[in-house]
Amino acid sequence: MSDKVRIALDAMGGDIGAPIVIPGAELSLMRHPDVEFTLFGDAAVLQPLLDKHPRLKAAARIVHTDVAIKMDDKPSKALRSGRWKSSMALAIDAVKQGNADAAVSAGNTGAWMALATIKLKTIAGIDRPALAALWPTLRGESVVLDVGASIGADARRLVDLAMMGSAMARVLFDLERPTVGLLNIGVEEVKGLEAVREAGQILRESNLPGLAYAGFVEGTDIGKGTVDVVVTEGFAGNIAVKTAEGTARQIASYLRSAMTRTWRARLGYLLARQAFVMLGEKMDPRRANGGTFLGLNGIVIKSHGGTDAEGFAAAIDIGYDMVRHGLRAKIEQAAIAGKVGGVAS
Amino acid sequence: MSDKVRIALDAMGGDIGAPIVIPGAELSLMRHPDVEFTLFGDAAVLQPLLDKHPRLKAAARIVHTDVAIKMDDKPSKALRSGRWKSSMALAIDAVKQGNADAAVSAGNTGAWMALATIKLKTIAGIDRPALAALWPTLRGESVVLDVGASIGADARRLVDLAMMGSAMARVLFDLERPTVGLLNIGVEEVKGLEAVREAGQILRESNLPGLAYAGFVEGTDIGKGTVDVVVTEGFAGNIAVKTAEGTARQIASYLRSAMTRTWRARLGYLLARQAFVMLGEKMDPRRANGGTFLGLNGIVIKSHGGTDAEGFAAAIDIGYDMVRHGLRAKIEQAAIAGKVGGVAS
Repeated sequence: MSDKVRIALDAMGGDIGAPIVIPGAELSLMRHPDVEFTLFGDAAVLQPLLDKHPRLKAAARIVHTDVAIKMDDKPSKALRSGRWKSSMALAIDAVKQGNADAAVSAGNTGAWMALATIKLKTIAGIDRPALAALWPTLRGESVVLDVGASIGADARRLVDLAMMGSAMARVLFDLERPTVGLLNIGVEEVKGLEAVREAGQILRESNLPGLAYAGFVEGTDIGKGTVDVVVTEGFAGNIAVKTAEGTARQIASYLRSAMTRTWRARLGYLLARQAFVMLGEKMDPRRANGGTFLGLNGIVIKSHGGTDAEGFAAAIDIGYDMVRHGLRAKIEQAAIAGKVGGVAS
Repeated sequence: MSDKVRIALDAMGGDIGAPIVIPGAELSLMRHPDVEFTLFGDAAVLQPLLDKHPRLKAAARIVHTDVAIKMDDKPSKALRSGRWKSSMALAIDAVKQGNADAAVSAGNTGAWMALATIKLKTIAGIDRPALAALWPTLRGESVVLDVGASIGADARRLVDLAMMGSAMARVLFDLERPTVGLLNIGVEEVKGLEAVREAGQILRESNLPGLAYAGFVEGTDIGKGTVDVVVTEGFAGNIAVKTAEGTARQIASYLRSAMTRTWRARLGYLLARQAFVMLGEKMDPRRANGGTFLGLNGIVIKSHGGTDAEGFAAAIDIGYDMVRHGLRAKIEQAAIAGKVGGVAS
């Protein structure tokens, strides 16, 4: 790693693409002047935009490619047509070849994961990558994983997720032994929860050095921040993160309509305006934008496809923090410790 | 069915038990004067409470039993020790014997479901009961199921859930053909989603008379009210409902602290107080209390264990609506239609 943090951007990814990526990169650069960007994409599109952002221009270079993977391409098609020359592929290659420390895309999730997995490969001891989200809670933030990289999980996979998630929490939250909970439902003896129970037993008995296993948690515990790391399989995890986002939008909509219904409410709103601004910031889903693929030989971040420049900047920020704090090395250590302890074997 | 709606209450169930059940029943009675209650439980506890609620007393009778299933009993233990004489068992028996039209409990979910299933049996064509929740949305309310009666679902089970959920929506929302969405995650070609895709194909091709299949929906769609019925397997469904509840509490907590931080915010709060009261009512999780077991030969409602009288009354209200609108007959018809159409076979 050079003194700079070198970030490769798929500049064509996302619902809008470069007009979000470029200002997003500039926003992140203003917070982290020690970042250097490589922008992969169509130079004819990127250059004029970059010319309008002189601060970014001084810290970025463009690598031209004609090929961009579409948002609705199936991963298998994306791999066939975009494996070598697409903006996504080149951004991942930059990480693989040691020319970048992290790669960020707001593009097609399935294609981004498939390319990252094929090119970077998983860390020894880890079968499949996981997608981790940062979740704002009443205590601060928690790591929630897997939020959709794969579906279903046996006990061993859940233990792997616990190790990867706690490595991420150690990096981002500066904790020695983050608390880890297994997401479960509060019904005993329902068939189908064997994997969760078995994983709980393994985590309790193995007493891993890098995490403190705190038992089962339920959906209500995520927002409370009961634990630093919430572990679940990818289908339920994705449903959870999207349902919470939907609930936040729903309440924001109720709040808007309540605060404009009468003149007293409107006046009250004006007086408490500062408080509403703060509340809006707390509820802003862009703050938590940026899923992190864990378990790969490289740092790869997925931004929401529909985010704006502020949200894309948040995704870059996560990549930056991961690089500065050595996420990958910590997951490798955890995987090795797990293997030595006989957990992940 | 007599002219009255006859509701059997497990008067001992829930974290608090009778001191919630009795005032809850009175609240519901005030809304529905055509209800008659049978209260199953310890007469020494129930009689003094009932004496304090004269309106309820005139519409309720107590059936004494010493046996009550504990909140933390495992279902298997509850079945052994409470199958014949517990307050839960007697409430279910009342439905089975035709002495009550619906049964409501705030007790141990697993035991309540196990007793209801063993005693009432599932409707022909349905393998296992499902637990359905009413979910407040921006458009009104939706039915979400399964929220935890069983884990995992193949395509056939998902189609059964769609049929049962749409029967409930027809009853409660007075719709001829409720829209139905299958909860999914937005990633194509991830292994493990075959059942969801296959169920989608069956629902599309079979074009059932009682529902309008609307395709896949994501977690963000639930709060929007994109469809009338959201179908998913029980683990993800339970996580979704609890995560939404946690998110609502989290935002309520942000809102409280924002509105008390400065004198301007406090003043604004006072002015807009009426708006906040309305908002609080919209966000009140008690409004949506009361999960309904679908697919049984009888109407059985599960209240949250930790609810208060208002919440328990909401659970009774759901049972009342189900009885008045003939839920069971509609599910039976749907199951038969499905069989005839070759869907559920």
